[in-house]
Amino acid sequence: MTLQKQNLPEMFPVPGFRLGTASAGIKHTGRTDLVIMALAESARCVAVFTRNAFCAAPVTVARENLAQGQPSYFVINTGNANAGTGDQGVRDARQCCESLAQHAGCPRAAVLPFSTGVIGEPLPVEKIRAALPLALASLDENGWSAAAGGILTTDTVPKGASRQFRVGDDSITITGIAKGSGMIRPDMATMLAFIATDACIEPGVLQQCLTAAVEQSFNRITVDGDTSTNDACVLVATAASPVPVLQPGTADYAAFSEAVTGVCIELAQAIVRDGEGATRFVTVAVEDGAEPAECLQVAYTIAHSPLVKTALFAGDPNWGRILAAVGRAGLPDLDLEAVSIYLDDVCIVRKGSRAGDYTEAAGRQVMQRDELTIRVKLGRGSSCERVWTCDLSYDYVRINAEYRT
Amino acid sequence: MTLQKQNLPEMFPVPGFRLGTASAGIKHTGRTDLVIMALAESARCVAVFTRNAFCAAPVTVARENLAQGQPSYFVINTGNANAGTGDQGVRDARQCCESLAQHAGCPRAAVLPFSTGVIGEPLPVEKIRAALPLALASLDENGWSAAAGGILTTDTVPKGASRQFRVGDDSITITGIAKGSGMIRPDMATMLAFIATDACIEPGVLQQCLTAAVEQSFNRITVDGDTSTNDACVLVATAASPVPVLQPGTADYAAFSEAVTGVCIELAQAIVRDGEGATRFVTVAVEDGAEPAECLQVAYTIAHSPLVKTALFAGDPNWGRILAAVGRAGLPDLDLEAVSIYLDDVCIVRKGSRAGDYTEAAGRQVMQRDELTIRVKLGRGSSCERVWTCDLSYDYVRINAEYRT
Repeated sequence: MTLQKQNLPEMFPVPGFRLGTASAGIKHTGRTDLVIMALAESARCVAVFTRNAFCAAPVTVARENLAQGQPSYFVINTGNANAGTGDQGVRDARQCCESLAQHAGCPRAAVLPFSTGVIGEPLPVEKIRAALPLALASLDENGWSAAAGGILTTDTVPKGASRQFRVGDDSITITGIAKGSGMIRPDMATMLAFIATDACIEPGVLQQCLTAAVEQSFNRITVDGDTSTNDACVLVATAASPVPVLQPGTADYAAFSEAVTGVCIELAQAIVRDGEGATRFVTVAVEDGAEPAECLQVAYTIAHSPLVKTALFAGDPNWGRILAAVGRAGLPDLDLEAVSIYLDDVCIVRKGSRAGDYTEAAGRQVMQRDELTIRVKLGRGSSCERVWTCDLSYDYVRINAEYRT
Repeated sequence: MTLQKQNLPEMFPVPGFRLGTASAGIKHTGRTDLVIMALAESARCVAVFTRNAFCAAPVTVARENLAQGQPSYFVINTGNANAGTGDQGVRDARQCCESLAQHAGCPRAAVLPFSTGVIGEPLPVEKIRAALPLALASLDENGWSAAAGGILTTDTVPKGASRQFRVGDDSITITGIAKGSGMIRPDMATMLAFIATDACIEPGVLQQCLTAAVEQSFNRITVDGDTSTNDACVLVATAASPVPVLQPGTADYAAFSEAVTGVCIELAQAIVRDGEGATRFVTVAVEDGAEPAECLQVAYTIAHSPLVKTALFAGDPNWGRILAAVGRAGLPDLDLEAVSIYLDDVCIVRKGSRAGDYTEAAGRQVMQRDELTIRVKLGRGSSCERVWTCDLSYDYVRINAEYRT
């Protein structure tokens, strides 16, 4: 079962940004597992990466290369994360960049590598190298759908989002793809997300825009609380649009920033909807907190609780587990009498104990919806935060128990 | 399946401490769900309770009553946690104490109430009141086994530990029981544990002894990271032994303290072995840390990772998930090159990447054991900590999805 609302939406091509795919046979033969992206010379690229101390070799190399200047190519493989592979892993990632650079005629540092898949196995560099020409030959501005399929691992559906908005007589396009359905609790980035726009914008402003968007999207989702070693989110602005440079503080920049955030939220939610074994899409909203940090603390404690997640799977309004999670979130001086909890519009806890008008039937009706919101009002301030998560089902256990077999 | 090594060991009676049971029909009819414990007048009682802000009504009342003086009785029910029940819950807990006090002829404050079971339902006080005479009539120093069965909920086996040690020509006995198999990540206490000894010891010293023992036992286990609203651990010293008052700093006190800690560890490990759906008993040992806190931080990050826990269930040496958990534990300035990871005696990670001599076959052999140790050497100090946990199986999901049906 997937909670994905639909297949890919219409994916508007982004002038100056091409995508190509190939089958390298990294883990399975015949599966698209290699994706190349090519950036116009005018393009500016910014990125955020995982904060896992054991970051993967491609993250290390991508950071290094990005620091040396604007990239021309991304090379992305699935089926192998090239993580926990030490110095050899770094050499392997550099070798992939070097091979692509030779074919494409650019410096090695102009290639950024990305990998996702199993941790701890050596990267099959030869297989990747052999498939590069085919991937390069297929580069196309209309390659988004094929690329969305090519970056998947345990995902069951491709994930994409695309928007266009008018600026005067012209328009700006923002299109992105993402992958991820397990080891999902991004920290400053998601598993893998690639977003491109034809807007013309300074790199510093672009980075600001991406950081703000990621904070409100990929950093607000969790499937299992596990932060990947390979998370990366990349935003490319090709400057191919005739729209003049976007300047912060203008209405056009605001529209752009909102559209980027919208694309990121759509991709982030798509990851949760396709969470391993997910049968319900759950928004956890924590309101009236003293500050954003404590709202997030409560929200993540609920979203990570295996007991809350299995009750969600069962469609059982066992709200005591939500209350227990709020109680153990570690908020100083929490006034229980001020706390209320809702399932969608049904009040289950008022003033710290079961609401007088609550009925089990009303709670059950909400808990059995495909999508629902758990809303906690802390009654001690005006901060609000929300995170998105899914339930914990038999299939989560099955998928992760059988992952390598 | 249970990993419990055996049924209850020989449970030595503790002079001055009697236990009685009855069926009150709280959740299921015919099941023993009410336990009374009676303390000799000379007895001294100390306790530690949950730190969940939403602590249950019986915890509130037990704390209140204990503050007023030494108790004479405990009344314990399963099938209903009397948590999230607000003022009514507090009145209900007091009512149970009052009823028992009337029957037994003692002040209400001399009764401590304990509850465990479903959260958020009103406590069926009448059912409990009606069953009290039967429970009182069955009070017996040999009632430990029946009481161990009477405090269970989703547990599959009763949990007990008992020790005797010689002091001169006499001996001191320590016997305890515990329950708990889900919502287990105690914080200063376990679900419910009752330990009695006939030693003669000052209450302040007894509290010190319990706090130290709990820190090394119940505070080192986790099944699912969820901290209960009802956790309580009680230690009673009846002073019925002819052995003189135990004084800190003496060899006899050291022997006593070691025996109490031993009983607590045995009970705590029994809870993990009977963890909901558990098929493997896992020790997570983190060594060579800069300080104990960071060792625990890494140990709990591993022990709570759903990805590590499902790999354990599968018996799959997917050690990349362990490495990723170490990486996201948030240790400042972690030197990856110094980190080694072992599965029992098999080194899987050396200097931050896959050990050269590691083979998948060797890793798989360890991962498929009923009991195993994940050992992480941080290489940045001399602190060591260990926690005990279990795997995450289909049955954990089933048990918690079906809990109220």
